[in-house]
Amino acid sequence: MNFCSHCGESIEQLVPAGDNRLRDVCSSCGTIHYSNPNNVCGAILTWGEKILLCKRAIEPRYGLWTLPAGFMENGETIAQAAAREAMEEANAEAKQLDLFGIFNLPHISQVYLMFQGELKTDQVSPGEESLETDLFAVEDIPWQQLAFPVVKHSLELFINSGGQQKVHVTTAVKLAERKFEWLDQ
Amino acid sequence: MNFCSHCGESIEQLVPAGDNRLRDVCSSCGTIHYSNPNNVCGAILTWGEKILLCKRAIEPRYGLWTLPAGFMENGETIAQAAAREAMEEANAEAKQLDLFGIFNLPHISQVYLMFQGELKTDQVSPGEESLETDLFAVEDIPWQQLAFPVVKHSLELFINSGGQQKVHVTTAVKLAERKFEWLDQ
Repeated sequence: MNFCSHCGESIEQLVPAGDNRLRDVCSSCGTIHYSNPNNVCGAILTWGEKILLCKRAIEPRYGLWTLPAGFMENGETIAQAAAREAMEEANAEAKQLDLFGIFNLPHISQVYLMFQGELKTDQVSPGEESLETDLFAVEDIPWQQLAFPVVKHSLELFINSGGQQKVHVTTAVKLAERKFEWLDQ
Repeated sequence: MNFCSHCGESIEQLVPAGDNRLRDVCSSCGTIHYSNPNNVCGAILTWGEKILLCKRAIEPRYGLWTLPAGFMENGETIAQAAAREAMEEANAEAKQLDLFGIFNLPHISQVYLMFQGELKTDQVSPGEESLETDLFAVEDIPWQQLAFPVVKHSLELFINSGGQQKVHVTTAVKLAERKFEWLDQ
C-alpha cells in the first residue's frame, strides 16, 4: 500500500494509539487501513464413492487438479461461498453441505473452510476457471497432479475420516517449498 | 474506496474480465482491489461454572458486556487469534481452546469463530479495551447489558449445548434493528 484509498495522499507505517501492530496509516487524513486474513471456502462433493475434482484453467497451478474452492465474498455465508464456487467451477450442486474442516494457512494469511456434501447429479462440467471436471474413485485420485497442499490434506482427512461428523481444525506449518506438516489446531 | 492504494490514481467500479461482480479497479494501473469478509475470533472461557465477560471500554457499545473477541490478524491461526484477544482484553489464559461455533453475519460481512476453554486461573483483569472483567454464574449473566446479538447467541448455545463437542454453524438473519433470528448454517 503506497497511497490512501480514501484521500489519495501518501501512507506511512506506524503503530496507532491503543494498538500494538504496524498499520498503514494516511499521513494526511489519518485513516488506518487494516489488512486481515481471507477465507477460502470449498467443498468435497461426492457421487457414490467418487469425488469431484476440477482441472485449473487459471494461474497459479494451471492444469493441475483441485477441489472447487475460492475466496469468500462480502454478503455471503461460508456455506453459500462453498456452494457458489462449486457452481462456478464445475456447474455442480450439492444436496447439503456440512462443514468438514478448517485449515489455517498463516504463512499466507488464509483460512480454508471446507465442506462435504453429495452431488445432486453426476452432470458436472467445467466453468470458466476449469479446463475439465471429473469424478474420481479414491484409487484414481491424481495425487501427483494436485494443485495445492491444502487440497491433498483435505482429501486425505476426508478419506481417512470414515464419514465421522467431526470438524477438523488444523494448521499448515511450512517445512520447505510446497512441503507442509499439518498440526491439530 | 476513492483512490488506488498502489498508484494513487482514481478508482472506477466495474466487472473485470472473467469476473461476475463489481470491483474497485484502478483507471490507471488496472489493479483490482478486492474487499472480502473479516473473521472475528473469540472465546467462552470458564472457571468452574462461571463464564468470563469483559465490559467494553471502546465504541461501539461502550460500557456493555462482551466475550473476549476481535479481528483475526495476518499471520495467525484462528485459535491464536482467540487466545490473543483473551489476553489483550482480560489478561486471561486458557488451558486449551476448542472450536465451538461459527456464526455468519453476512449483513456486515463478518464470520465469528468462537472457541471454548477453561481458564488457567481466576486471576483476570481488564486490558486496554475493557473497563472491567468478571466471572459470571449463568444465572448472573447480564443478558440485558450484552454488547452484541452474537454474544447473546454464543452464550445461549454454549449454555444449552451441555458440553457436547459439536461445532455449531449458524447465520444471523436480521429481522429488525438489533433483532436477529439464527438459522442453522
